[in-house]
Order: sequence, then C-alpha cells, then structure tokens
Amino acid sequence: MSAASTFALSSRIASRAVVPVTSSLLRPTFTASRRFHPSKMASNPIATLDTSLIPRLPASSPTLFEAKKKKNLSFETIAKEVGRDEVAIAAMFYGQARASPEDIKKLSQVLDIPAELLESQLGGFPDRGRTIDMPPKEPLIYRLYEIVQNYGYAYKAVLNEKFGDGIMSAISFSTKVEKETDDKGEWAVITLRGKWLPYSRF
Amino acid sequence: MSAASTFALSSRIASRAVVPVTSSLLRPTFTASRRFHPSKMASNPIATLDTSLIPRLPASSPTLFEAKKKKNLSFETIAKEVGRDEVAIAAMFYGQARASPEDIKKLSQVLDIPAELLESQLGGFPDRGRTIDMPPKEPLIYRLYEIVQNYGYAYKAVLNEKFGDGIMSAISFSTKVEKETDDKGEWAVITLRGKWLPYSRF
Amino acid sequence: MSAASTFALSSRIASRAVVPVTSSLLRPTFTASRRFHPSKMASNPIATLDTSLIPRLPASSPTLFEAKKKKNLSFETIAKEVGRDEVAIAAMFYGQARASPEDIKKLSQVLDIPAELLESQLGGFPDRGRTIDMPPKEPLIYRLYEIVQNYGYAYKAVLNEKFGDGIMSAISFSTKVEKETDDKGEWAVITLRGKWLPYSRF
Amino acid sequence: MSAASTFALSSRIASRAVVPVTSSLLRPTFTASRRFHPSKMASNPIATLDTSLIPRLPASSPTLFEAKKKKNLSFETIAKEVGRDEVAIAAMFYGQARASPEDIKKLSQVLDIPAELLESQLGGFPDRGRTIDMPPKEPLIYRLYEIVQNYGYAYKAVLNEKFGDGIMSAISFSTKVEKETDDKGEWAVITLRGKWLPYSRF
Amino acid sequence: MSAASTFALSSRIASRAVVPVTSSLLRPTFTASRRFHPSKMASNPIATLDTSLIPRLPASSPTLFEAKKKKNLSFETIAKEVGRDEVAIAAMFYGQARASPEDIKKLSQVLDIPAELLESQLGGFPDRGRTIDMPPKEPLIYRLYEIVQNYGYAYKAVLNEKFGDGIMSAISFSTKVEKETDDKGEWAVITLRGKWLPYSRF
Amino acid sequence: MSAASTFALSSRIASRAVVPVTSSLLRPTFTASRRFHPSKMASNPIATLDTSLIPRLPASSPTLFEAKKKKNLSFETIAKEVGRDEVAIAAMFYGQARASPEDIKKLSQVLDIPAELLESQLGGFPDRGRTIDMPPKEPLIYRLYEIVQNYGYAYKAVLNEKFGDGIMSAISFSTKVEKETDDKGEWAVITLRGKWLPYSRF
Amino acid sequence: MSAASTFALSSRIASRAVVPVTSSLLRPTFTASRRFHPSKMASNPIATLDTSLIPRLPASSPTLFEAKKKKNLSFETIAKEVGRDEVAIAAMFYGQARASPEDIKKLSQVLDIPAELLESQLGGFPDRGRTIDMPPKEPLIYRLYEIVQNYGYAYKAVLNEKFGDGIMSAISFSTKVEKETDDKGEWAVITLRGKWLPYSRF
Amino acid sequence: MSAASTFALSSRIASRAVVPVTSSLLRPTFTASRRFHPSKMASNPIATLDTSLIPRLPASSPTLFEAKKKKNLSFETIAKEVGRDEVAIAAMFYGQARASPEDIKKLSQVLDIPAELLESQLGGFPDRGRTIDMPPKEPLIYRLYEIVQNYGYAYKAVLNEKFGDGIMSAISFSTKVEKETDDKGEWAVITLRGKWLPYSRF
Amino acid sequence: MSAASTFALSSRIASRAVVPVTSSLLRPTFTASRRFHPSKMASNPIATLDTSLIPRLPASSPTLFEAKKKKNLSFETIAKEVGRDEVAIAAMFYGQARASPEDIKKLSQVLDIPAELLESQLGGFPDRGRTIDMPPKEPLIYRLYEIVQNYGYAYKAVLNEKFGDGIMSAISFSTKVEKETDDKGEWAVITLRGKWLPYSRF
Amino acid sequence: MSAASTFALSSRIASRAVVPVTSSLLRPTFTASRRFHPSKMASNPIATLDTSLIPRLPASSPTLFEAKKKKNLSFETIAKEVGRDEVAIAAMFYGQARASPEDIKKLSQVLDIPAELLESQLGGFPDRGRTIDMPPKEPLIYRLYEIVQNYGYAYKAVLNEKFGDGIMSAISFSTKVEKETDDKGEWAVITLRGKWLPYSRF
Repeated sequence: MSAASTFALSSRIASRAVVPVTSSLLRPTFTASRRFHPSKMASNPIATLDTSLIPRLPASSPTLFEAKKKKNLSFETIAKEVGRDEVAIAAMFYGQARASPEDIKKLSQVLDIPAELLESQLGGFPDRGRTIDMPPKEPLIYRLYEIVQNYGYAYKAVLNEKFGDGIMSAISFSTKVEKETDDKGEWAVITLRGKWLPYSRF
Repeated sequence: MSAASTFALSSRIASRAVVPVTSSLLRPTFTASRRFHPSKMASNPIATLDTSLIPRLPASSPTLFEAKKKKNLSFETIAKEVGRDEVAIAAMFYGQARASPEDIKKLSQVLDIPAELLESQLGGFPDRGRTIDMPPKEPLIYRLYEIVQNYGYAYKAVLNEKFGDGIMSAISFSTKVEKETDDKGEWAVITLRGKWLPYSRF
Repeated sequence: MSAASTFALSSRIASRAVVPVTSSLLRPTFTASRRFHPSKMASNPIATLDTSLIPRLPASSPTLFEAKKKKNLSFETIAKEVGRDEVAIAAMFYGQARASPEDIKKLSQVLDIPAELLESQLGGFPDRGRTIDMPPKEPLIYRLYEIVQNYGYAYKAVLNEKFGDGIMSAISFSTKVEKETDDKGEWAVITLRGKWLPYSRF
Repeated sequence: MSAASTFALSSRIASRAVVPVTSSLLRPTFTASRRFHPSKMASNPIATLDTSLIPRLPASSPTLFEAKKKKNLSFETIAKEVGRDEVAIAAMFYGQARASPEDIKKLSQVLDIPAELLESQLGGFPDRGRTIDMPPKEPLIYRLYEIVQNYGYAYKAVLNEKFGDGIMSAISFSTKVEKETDDKGEWAVITLRGKWLPYSRF
Repeated sequence: MSAASTFALSSRIASRAVVPVTSSLLRPTFTASRRFHPSKMASNPIATLDTSLIPRLPASSPTLFEAKKKKNLSFETIAKEVGRDEVAIAAMFYGQARASPEDIKKLSQVLDIPAELLESQLGGFPDRGRTIDMPPKEPLIYRLYEIVQNYGYAYKAVLNEKFGDGIMSAISFSTKVEKETDDKGEWAVITLRGKWLPYSRF
Repeated sequence: MSAASTFALSSRIASRAVVPVTSSLLRPTFTASRRFHPSKMASNPIATLDTSLIPRLPASSPTLFEAKKKKNLSFETIAKEVGRDEVAIAAMFYGQARASPEDIKKLSQVLDIPAELLESQLGGFPDRGRTIDMPPKEPLIYRLYEIVQNYGYAYKAVLNEKFGDGIMSAISFSTKVEKETDDKGEWAVITLRGKWLPYSRF
Repeated sequence: MSAASTFALSSRIASRAVVPVTSSLLRPTFTASRRFHPSKMASNPIATLDTSLIPRLPASSPTLFEAKKKKNLSFETIAKEVGRDEVAIAAMFYGQARASPEDIKKLSQVLDIPAELLESQLGGFPDRGRTIDMPPKEPLIYRLYEIVQNYGYAYKAVLNEKFGDGIMSAISFSTKVEKETDDKGEWAVITLRGKWLPYSRF
Repeated sequence: MSAASTFALSSRIASRAVVPVTSSLLRPTFTASRRFHPSKMASNPIATLDTSLIPRLPASSPTLFEAKKKKNLSFETIAKEVGRDEVAIAAMFYGQARASPEDIKKLSQVLDIPAELLESQLGGFPDRGRTIDMPPKEPLIYRLYEIVQNYGYAYKAVLNEKFGDGIMSAISFSTKVEKETDDKGEWAVITLRGKWLPYSRF
Repeated sequence: MSAASTFALSSRIASRAVVPVTSSLLRPTFTASRRFHPSKMASNPIATLDTSLIPRLPASSPTLFEAKKKKNLSFETIAKEVGRDEVAIAAMFYGQARASPEDIKKLSQVLDIPAELLESQLGGFPDRGRTIDMPPKEPLIYRLYEIVQNYGYAYKAVLNEKFGDGIMSAISFSTKVEKETDDKGEWAVITLRGKWLPYSRF
Repeated sequence: MSAASTFALSSRIASRAVVPVTSSLLRPTFTASRRFHPSKMASNPIATLDTSLIPRLPASSPTLFEAKKKKNLSFETIAKEVGRDEVAIAAMFYGQARASPEDIKKLSQVLDIPAELLESQLGGFPDRGRTIDMPPKEPLIYRLYEIVQNYGYAYKAVLNEKFGDGIMSAISFSTKVEKETDDKGEWAVITLRGKWLPYSRF
C-alpha cells in the first residue's frame, strides 16, 4: 500500500464512511486519476464539500460535488451548461432545489456522471432545510441571518406599506448573486425576488 | 369619564404601561386630536407599532411611531424628506439603525417631535438585534429566514467562487425594497449589497 | 370601598396592569354593569381572555375580548354579523388576522366599541405568531402540533405526488371548524385549504 | 468495477451505511434491474426517501421506500391496493402508523417484499414523532406548523365555544388530502377529523 | 405610615404589581383584617401562592389563593365542601382545570368570595400548561418529570402489550394523591387513571 | 443471494450497523430460525425495539429485545418468571433499571441468552435517562409529560399540605400499570408510589 | 424635591416597581434613616440583593434583604442568631429553603421585621429553583455547575462503587461553606452531605 | 401640559417604568436642565443606555448612565478621573464589575451623584452575566462571540502547548481596548490578559 | 459460529462499532479470556462503561474501562496503586482529567495495558465537558445539578461575605467522596475545595 | 494478532471509524512506526486531536493531527516553518482557516504528508464554526466565552465612543497568543485586532 493511499485511508475515517476494499484496483484509480486537475484551476478555487456535512445531505450531494471537483468546474460554468442560475445549481448540489429531468440529463453530461445514477439520486423531491443548524455558525451565512435579525421588522413595515397585508413568497421566488467593483473595493449583491401573496380573506 | 376613554384605558392596560391621570386635559387631547386623520389615508394603511413589542424597543420607537401614526405618514414619505432609504428609516424606527444629527433634525421637523426629545432618545448607539426572537414567528419575516436556511450554503459556495474566502459584510451594507408588477402579479424585490471582506492572512 | 371592588383590585394585580383610580365612579360601573349578563348565557360559555396572555397581545385584544364578554357573544354570532368565518374573527381577536375597514365598522357596531378606538387599535398590520410559545403547552393546541409532528412527512409525500414540488400556502389560505355528531360521539373537523405554490425555476 | 458502480459506491458513503461486497453479482443487479422503470412514470414523480433521514427511521422505512421506488408506485396506488387512506400509508412508510397483519400482507404483495421480512420490521408498535425536529425546517411542513402557531388560539376559542372544555383527539383521528382546481389555480385541502374529548370531572 | 405598612409596601414591589393608594382606608383593612388568622393553623401549614408566579397565572389564581390563605383552608377541606377531588381543586386554583357553575357557587361560599367576581374570573376555559417551564425546576415536580423520563418507554411497552396501539388519555383522565404509612416511613401514592384510546384506522 | 437476504441487508442499513459477512452460514440461520414464531402470537403483539433507538441504548437492550422477539414473550410473562414487576422488567430492557445477579440468571434462562454475555452487558450500573429527548415526542409518553406539566403545581400543593416540605422520591419508588374495563371502555391505571422525603433542617 | 430623591426615583425605575408617592414623609424617611449605617461595616461588605432579580423571587426576599442591608448583618451573624447554618439562611433569603415558625420568630427579632408580615410572606412552602437560569451566567455559580459537568460521571462511578445503585439525596441533605488559608492563599471548601438512597426493587 | 412633556410621557411608557407625577416641578426640571449639554459634545457621541435593557440591570445602571448623559462624559474621561481602565468603568456601569469604596467616592464626584445613593446601589457584589442573552444579537458583540466560536480550539491547542493543562483565568484578568490607525484604516485592538491556572493534581 | 458469539455480535451492533473479523481466533479469545472474572467480584460491582456513551468519549475511555472490567478493579483500588484520588482516576477514565507520564506508567501496570498504547491515547490534553448533556438526565448527577440550581445564590452570597468579590476556582481545585454511616443510614459526603480567586482590579 | 494491536482495535471502535483490514502489513506499520517518537518530546506535550471530535471536522483535520503527532511538532514549530502565526496554523488544523497553496506546500513538507492529498483535503473553502457547541463546555474555551458574556456591553460602549457606530471585524482580523511571566506567575495574553467597520449610511 503506497504512502498516498495510507493517508487517503486515514482521512476517510473522518467521514465515518467505510469503503471495504477487496480489490487493489479501486483505490489508485480513485485517488490518482479522479481528483487532481490543477491545470484547469480557476482564478479562485472552486467550492468543494466539507466531508463532515455529508451525513446531513442526500446521497446526490457527494456524487455531484466529487464530480465537480474531479472536473474542476465552477457553479457558474455548470449553470451556463445547464441553463439555470448558479445559485439554483448550488442549491441543487446541497439538496435544496429540485432538478428536472432535463437538468439531470445536462448535469450528467457536464459532470460525467452516469445518467441513471443521477436520476436515481436526484429525481426525488428535496427534503429542504436540514443542512444548516440555525443560527448559522458559518460567518458568511451568519451575516445573512443577521440581516434578517436586524432588518426583519423594517422589511415587514416597508413591504406592508407598499403591498398591504401579506408576505413575499420564498417559493414563487428567485435569487441571484452579482459582483460589483468600485474604487472602494468589491461588493456582493444578492437579489431576492418573490411573488407578493396577500392574506386570503375568509 | 366618557365611553371612549374607558376603552382607551382598558386597552392601554395591555401594554403594561401605566399613565396615572391627574388631569382631565391629557386624555381627550391625546385621543381626539392626535390619532385619526382619515382624510390623509394612503392607498395601503401605514405601518404602526404593535404595543406588545414596546418592551423590546428603545424609548425612541413609540415616540416615532406615535408621531408617524398621528401624521399618517408612510416610511416612503418620511424617507424622502430625510433623504435616506425607507428601509433605513424603518430600521431607525425599530432601533436598528443610527440616526445622525441631521437625520434627527429632519425627523423632528417631519414628525413634529420636539428636537431635543428626539435627540435625547435617538442620539445614542443602537443596541441592535433584540427585537426579534429567532426563528422569527412573523410569517413575512420567517420567509426571509427560510431563504437563509435553504439557500445559505448555496450563497456561500457561489460567493466563495466569485470572491474567494471571506464574507459579504452586513455592516458596510445597504439594502432596498422594490415593487415590480407583471402579468403574473406583484413581486417584491429585496436587494442586499455588502462589501466583500476577505479573511486576513496572519 | 366595597368587598367586591377589593377583590377586583387584588385580582387585577395579576395582570401586571395598573388602573389608578381617581374617581369612585369608574370601578362600580365597570364591575357592576359591564361584566355579567347571565341571562344571555349560551349553551357553552363563551371564550374569554386569560389575563396572563395580555402582555403577548396587541392593544386590540383586551378591548375586543372585554366587549365580547360584556355582551356575551360567541365568535359564531360575531362572525355572522361581520360576514366572516368564526376562525378568522377569533384570529382577529388574538391579533393574528387583519381587519378591513368594514370589519372594524361592523365589529364596532356588534360589540359597542367606539369606532375610532377600534380603528386606532385594529387598523395596523398584524404582527403574527408571538402569542404562542412552541411547542404549545395548551393540550388542545398541542394536539394540532402533534398532528404536524407525526404526519408532517406523510403530508409532504402525498402532496408532492399530487401536486409536484411546492408547498400548500398558509397565506393564500382559509380554514374552518365544523362539528359532526354520530353514534360514537362528537367529532371536530378542521379543514385547511391553501393555494398550491410550485417552486419557481430559476 | 464499472464507472456506474464507482459512483454508486461514492454516493452510498453519504448515508453512512456500508454494504460489504463479497459478490460481484449483487451490485449490478441492484442498480440495473431494481431501480429504474421510467415506463411506469406517473405525471408527477413519486416520493422517495432522502437517505440522510434513514438514521431517524425504523428499519421498515428504507425497505418500504426502496420497494416503492423499484416498482414506481405512488402512495395513492398503494393505498387503493391496501384499502387505506394514502396519508395513512405514507405515515406507515415513515414509521408513524401501525400496520395491521392484513396491511402487512397486502403491502408485501403490492411491493414484492417478502412477507416475513415485512412482518418482522413492521409488526411492532410505532415509536412516533422522532423523525422531524421541531420547528420543522422543510418549507412544506413548516407551513402546517405556522398554521398551528398563528391560528392555535383561534381554533381553541372556537372549539371551546362549540364543544365545551376538552380537546380534539389526535389519536381517535383521521385525515385526508384532496386537490381542488379552480380558475385561480390548484388548492390543497387537508381535513383533520378528531373525536371530541371532554375533560373528565373528578 | 406605620412600620408594618412600610414593609408591606416594600414587599409588594416584588410582585411588580402596583396599588396606587389614594385612600388611607384600604391598606390597614387589607393588612390587618384579611391576612393573619394564626389560630386556625393546620398541622401542616396550607399551601399558598408564590407571588413571583402570579404573572403566569390567570386573574382567578391570586383571588382564590388569597381567600384560601385568609380562611386558612387546606385543599382537602375545600375539596370536601365542593365535592371534588383535592387535586382537581388545586389544579383549578392554578388555572389548570375548569370550574363548573356549581363549583364556582360552592367555592364562592367556602372562600367568601363574591360570586360574580369568581364567575367573571373563573368562568372561562382554562388556558392550560403555561405555569411551569419544562423541565420543571421545583424538586418535587422534577421527580415526577424524572419518572416520565426514566420509565417513559417502559410504560409505553407495557401499555402497548396490554392494550395495543394507542395512548392513555390525559383528558378523559382522573388522578388522586394518597398517603400511606408503614414502618419505613411515609409514602406518597399518586394514581393516574386515563381512558385508553386506540389509534383510529383510516 | 436470495431475495429475502437482500431485503434484510437493505433494512439493516437503517440501523447504521454493519455486519461483515464472511460466512454464508450466519444469515440464513439468523433470519430463518431466530425471528419468526407466528404460532406463539399473543392477543396483542409484543413490544419490540425500534432500531433507530439503538444508538441511545446500552449493549444489553438489543440483546434482550432480540431474544424477547425470538421467543415472542410479553413483559408480563417475563416478569412473572423473573419475579419482578413488568414495568421494572421493561425498564431493565431499556437500560433504566438495574438487574441483580438473580435477575440476570433468570433472564438468561427465560430468554435463552448465554448467562455470561448477559452478565457482561447487564451487570453494570444503569446510566439512566438518555433514551428520551424531552419533551417526549411519542404521543403516549407525551401524555404522561403533559400530566406533569398541567398538574405539577397541584400535586405539589396537595403533597405539601399532606406531608409538609419535601418530595416524593423517584428512587425509593415503585410503579405499576393496571387495566380496568367498565361500560365506558378500557382504562389504564398507573400507580406511582414513592417514599416521602422531608427536607433536612441544617 | 431634593436632588437625592430625584436619583432615588430614577434608580427605582430600574426595578419596574412603582411607588406612588402621595406623602412627602415617606421618601426622606426611607432614604435617610433606613439605608446607610456605615459605622457597622464588616470587613467584607455584606451581600445585598440585585434589584433585577426581584421579579424571580417571592415577596419575602426583598423584605429580608432590605432589613439585612439596613442592619448591615452578614449571613453568618444572622445564622448564629437563628441557630441554623449560614447557607440555609441565605437559601431562605432567596426563597430556596423553608423557614419554621421558630425561624420566622427569630428572623423577625434579628432583622426588626414585623413578625406577622414575615409569617405571611415566609410561612408557605418554597417554590424552589426558578431564580437561576441554567447554565448559570454568574461566574461564581458557573464554576459549581462546571464541576458537575466535568466530574459528574466520575462522582457517579465512585458513588456506585461505594454504595451500589442509587443516588445521593439533595433533599435529605445538608451543606456548609468553610474558609481555609494556607501559604498558597485562601481556599473555599464546600461540603455536600446527602443520604444515600438505593433504588427500590419492584 | 406642554408638547414636550407629552412626548416625554409617551416615550417613558416604553421602559415599563412609571413615574406618578404629583408635582409639576419635577418634569420640566428633569427634561430641561438635566439632559442636553450639546456644547460639551465629544467627537463621537457618548454611549448611553437603551431603556429596554433596564429590567436586566441593577438599580445602579440607570443612575450612572443618566448622570453620564447629563454631564456628557465619555468612559475614557470618567476612567481617568477614577483611575481605572475605561473597560472596567463601562463594566461597572453595566453591573459587571465591583466598585470599591474609593471608586464610588470618585464616581460620585465626577458624575454629581449623591455619594450615599451610589453607595447603596453600587456597594454590593455584582451578579454578573445576566445582561446579555447568548448568542449575542448585537452585531458588535456577536463578532467577539464568533471569534471564540471559530478560534476556540485553536486558542486551547496553542495555550496548552505553551502552558500545559489549565486555563487562562477570566477572574484574575484584565483587558483593554486600543485604537490603531494605519493606511488601511482604523483598527480596534482588544487585549485579554489572564493568569494561567494549571489544573490541580489530586 | 457459536451461540455466544452470535449474541456478542448482535450486541456489538448497538455501539455502532464494527469489528471486521478476518480471523476466527480473535473473538473466542476476546470473549472467553478477557471479560469475566467473577471470582474477584467486589461487594458492590465495579463501574463499567455504557457502550452508548462511547461516541462522546476519547479513544482512551473504552481502552481503560475494558481493562478495568477485565481485571475487575474498583476505582479505589486503582487510585491507591496510582497514588491519586479515586475521583481523579474516574475523571481520567472519562477523559476529564489529565494523566501525567507517571500516571500512565502506573495505569499501564495496574491495568495490563501496553504502555505505548496508553501513552498515545492518554497523553494529550483533555477536551473536557462534552460527555454530559446539561441538564444531566442521570438521576444521580441531576441531584448535584439541582444543588447548584437551588443553592447557587446562597453559596455566592455566603462566599462573597467570607472572601469578597471573586470565585472558587474549579481548576485549582480538588474533590473527594466519602461514606459515612450512622443510625439513620448511609451518607455520601462530597467535598469541593477550590482556591479563592479575587477579581483583578484594572 | 499481538496484544498491542488488540488494544488499538478496541480503542479505534470509539471513534466510530472502521478500517477493514485485508492485509496484515498495514496495521503493524501504522502502529509501530508512525505513532511514538518519545525522544522528541517537548517540555509540554504537544496538542493532539480528541478522536470524538473527528465527526465534526473536515477530512483534513485527522490527517494533519496524525502527522503532527507522528513528528511530535508543536504549532509554534510548524508556524515558523510555514511562516504564519501559530493560532492561524492551529485554526487551519481545526478547519477554521483557509490554507493557501503555499501553506499547503509547506505543511506537506513539514509534516511529510503527500502534497496532493493535502491539496485535495485542504484546498477548499473552510466551513467554519461547527466544531464547538455553544456555550462551550471546555473550561478553557468557556473562560473566553465568559469574557464576552461579562464584558460584551462594556466593549461595545467603549468601542462606540472611540470609533462611532460600527463593529470590530472578525474577518479582517488577526490574533495572537503570548506568554508573560512575572513574580505572580504566568500570564496568558491574547490580542484581538480587527478592522473597524462603520455602518454604511443608506
């Protein structure tokens, strides 16, 4: 057993997952040819999956993230290929958005994942919301939570005055992330767009 | 004691606040002349303050909301007069944003509140975040929370790929609310714009 | 001071509310003439407001409940007069549903509450959801919670198969309560009817 | 080892479950012949089981869901065969309802599961309620929870006035889901029907 | 102002309740004649109400407890007069059980409380369960909680085997407390008796 | 590999447990001869162990429950053989009560479990209370919890008046479950009997 | 109004308590003669009551603490006079221990509190445990909590080996605090002594 | 009653505190002469007290903050006068640090508060930690919490390697806040210095 | 495979641990020779490790407890051999106390564990506190927690009066457990001795 | 199988990780040559990883900690080699800080870990904050948490006065740990340095 696979083994222990090895063919292939393609490195590295999150995710998530890592593709690239927004694609990777049959077909092509495997893992209805413990501990996600905590009533008051009694839907909803640059630096711009639903009168 | 003031009395009990009445001048004035100006009614009613929230708010909040109600002004109108965004103004009303001396002066004029009272109540540094218990129970605010819960990791992944390792600031930050209408109905659009802060290397 | 008002005083302490008494006219009137009309007693007593809930409710709630108690009216009767469902009316009493200007006018008439007082207290946008601590401790409400806890995933699975990926709206929503009787006894039937909202594709 | 089974392997890691492979016959069979029957595809896809839920479910749940997926059957179809309501069947799949010996026999036939296996896994008394963390994070289930949170006291008040002091049973209870369509779109209708239990006098 | 009333004042502060005193008649009467009847002391002192619990209780609770204290009556004595179990009476005092019109009449007589006051405060439907924060911090109540925590599954298993799939009702339910003495000391015996409710088949 | 063992395999995945199979002898034996003895079926089925509870239980629990299932014995039967109360036996199965050496010997005989295995697994001191998350989600156990929540203060008041300042012990304690039947149906009667412990004076 | 009483007024606001002032005699007396006796200052100042704790305490607590402060007595001194341990006396002040009639008589004498007031406030059964939110935030109390958190299982293992299966009673229990001094500094020694209660066999 | 005092009245309601006004002298004095000294305005405004925090603070806090506001003094200025660090002084204002008799004397002089009032309110032992609910919702304080959350284990590992097994004391501890400015902007520097306490060997 | 090892297998499943068996030599040896030495049975059985606790403990805990069980040694015996207090030794077994190199050497000898294994597992710095969920559910440990909950403020008040403003260290700290017997039965005595740390003045 | 590896096996069970052994070469090598280098022991032992933390950490953490242990390197030494602060390095080991490509290269050299393995495990964006449950139970980390809890508002007040309305960034942030020694003993000094971010005006 080579030094590399010894470490691969030890690190795999961390994810509580067990791969019973009966064939010496599997591991080298897996390690050597599937993982590292530094030549295609983007300017920022791509997002990968923290292994300790796996128990909170559906089976499709590690499948998708491994293939993404192997091919070193950004969500932006995948999104363009699939014809959807990159936030929607990322949500799909985390089990938070449904993939249509066409999405699955395109993802299968872009990521070189057997179509029927992907269909089996990704064809169901997402069971949303269980990935994050709230309040979120990740600083980036906490900042979004803090915006809700601090501006929640302000949004409600302004929305009520603009639309009446109701809510902005989070279902009939889309969102996007943009980057702006000015002389003060870089700015992230997140847009939330939801249908206004007035309360029914009964 | 008139019927009207009897009810005013009973309802006031609800806010745990006590106004010992020693003069018959106070109440009628308060009730009759300060509260109802139906002639200036906007298309949607304006946002007012739920009295059961008062114990969680700074002293400035009931002062501001009472004056707003008395003058029947929307946040949009106030914001235009003060020269700030309406979400910022609403946040100020809920004790979630700082008012500059100029803001205070203009608010005082727009809302007919004695300047020195407002300065005294609104001149400090906000103690943010204590108004809402999280998870938020208000359906409108919960929808925003749900967006963070469902799309949190997707936002992180996309932002990391676009900007590197860091966060979108919620401090060096602005936000706005817009209304769009199309053939499917009305849409609320919330924009979040924050400075990108990369993690320091040390 | 009479024995009756002594007790009224001591019990009022419980609600943390203070009514400074400067006139001997108020209390007797309040106690003697406003509260007890046993002649109009319904078959079941009407629902009244637990005073310890008041701090969690808007100012309109004690106003409405006191008037309801004084006139000994059931929600069914009030609902018929106002032309809305009795659950909607009860929700309005607890600050969980918005009253339209017409609702306010009719409630004012049915309950003998000065219209402008009611307009002032009930004219805003409800700040929903803060009345109950979840999980609910009240056995009746807990049973509803338990139904969600036990059948939640079953509802989701069946709804997904019937409608696709989406939710049943709790906003574009109505509900009613009915009573059925058969040889096994009495049955409560609660109907929940919400618009199906499919997730947007973006 | 084929590419397909490599992915099957990697994705299986996600469920923390380990399938020690001693025979090369198992996997291809499992993957190829048991999973995909697109020809029987319903108009909406059928509900399947998110693998990350498995640790919270009894042994019967993955058995039932795998067979359901293999045969591509909706809960409606299964329910008709078994002669029970589809919500009851779905609850049974999630370990929230008891299966009678006849139910087990019919499920075994409909789903092609060995009767004695199903009897062994499904013959006990359900240990209900542990599948969902409350408040529910799944948006569909949260909406039901929100209905309890917002209308809980209204239901209590109306039920008390209609029935007296007691509760609507969640045990001596049935429920169903229906779909209605009108010119505004599709509506989900959930009916809750429980025996009224008056508090004993002692 | 006498020394005694100075202390009465200071201690009253603790209950967050305010009794604005405009008449010198009220207080002396209240303090001197209503509270202390040491001559009627039972072998064990009677249970009284911790003032810091009052904000969590309905208005009837301090009324009832004050009268009970004034007359120095045990729950056993009151229960005999009213014709109900002493646990039911105590639950009524804490707002956890409904009083029928006859109960109110008898309580009014036994406790010397004006009937109409009691009717007004005690005539509604109890809003149960909010008095105690769970887990209970009171050692006596915690022991009962601990019994549920430790023996909960054992009770379930034994009940399921004796009765099938269902629950023991806590509504169609009675309970009593008895005292037994043997050579090892005194024993408290609590009996819980509830109707068995089988799950409906649907 | 037979169809039966395929399913056995899939269901075992649910319990996160892995049984590395090196011998084809184990499984058939395990499945065929140990599990199903429908001929000895009691009128109600016996209680078995939900596999998803196993991680919260000591090693003795699955050992005992498997043997109980194999022999199809009720807790009542086992209790008679061992000479203890059935609740105590059930508590022992859930790791909530200590087994004496004699208990272990008898359990070993009744359940056909090797004595030294049982001694090794069951001979320690129980680590009580970790099986249930409180509040309990199981409806049957929740009803017991609700009794504590609703009647806790009533029990305390009555016990204090009967016994003085102290607690009913949950350690020097016994309990039993009985079934009563009358014309209204079946009733479950749970008796709690604990030593009264007065607070020490120091 | 003098400067001193202005401040007294402002600070009193903090305790949410209201003292309606109708006589100019009360305040000066209260402030000037009851509070400050610097001549009797102990080496360490005595413990007093944080006013923000008052809502969580029974009425007796501010009565006792005010008198203690007025007379500048340590718990040690009071304990000697009453003939009990100082921890028991302090617990009594915080509503955590029962005072016997003799205790009340002696406390009344030592603290110059009218006996009947004290009897009325202190004569009931303590409602223990609600003063502290757990985990305790006070650093001194947290250290004790941390000892339980860190050494809990070690205590259990050692106690089980020494005594068998049971618990150390916290009811049939006494405790004391001692001070030791050596060359390394001062040491606090807390002794906990509780009756060993073996689990009953049933 | 003037317009100014009307607003003062309404805003005061927010703090749940009630000042019964029997003299027209109090209010104008309070409002006009005590509050506003804009001429002494620092470059940044001084920190004041959010009134909604008052119920969580000892009586000394509003006394101190009102005087600080009246005299428009920064913590830095006060600290210099008292001869302590400004963080220690601010902690004292929030009831988190003990004031020595000398501190009290100096604070009394600097802030023009009657010495005996301050001694009475500030002379006890602080009951620390109850002001903030954790996790902190205030963004500034949350950032400090986040540092502990993110770097907690890193600090532990580095401290263990540098010092061995023990802790950095938070009691035998001092801290300070400094401002640094460079070409990138302003930097806040917080220093924590605590005695290293090795675990005792026993 | 023998009956004994079948059960060993089934019970091992409970601990989520997997022992891949490649040699038929391991198991019999493990079961037969390492576990049962009934001849050395103490008067009370020794404390062993509940397998369901293992995931919350460091690797050293099962190593130590298995060896302790194999040799049937009490903590008292081990403590005497190692020259430390038995509570310290038990804490070490639960990963709550650091072992010095000498401790490790002696433990290795007493328990027949290879020195280098123990050094590797026990040589690090303990990561304390994660074993118990608070509030503790184990009745024995809960009683200690309850003592802190009930007497926490009393200890603080008495300690403050004896020592001034500070804490009793839980680090510079030792503890012991003793058994006392008198005519009333057996008493457990726990002594906590910690250095007094005064707050620093800064 | 040797005695040493038997124990290694048993202890490994604790970490829920499974290493299926098919080759007798792996284990001896792993145990004997990789783990113990007592000759290079530092004055304080180095920090290692508690195995029960592994499920909460990314795959890189056990890889890094194992190599660190094998080579017996302190964070200080590693930090010097890598050219970063030791807290940053420790944070990286716990998955709380990002490693640049150069960091990875150097870590690979210093720790003898194959570069591509480290790149694969450490090249992503950290998912911060999930390692610690808050409040932290580890006494060392709790002390830092307590500092935030006790001094949080003091820091805010002082920072606001020094800088205005804003926060100290925890992202544009660095920190270090230093050791000071004086005649009173050893002192740990932690410095937090963050960019001041003023709230945007919008």
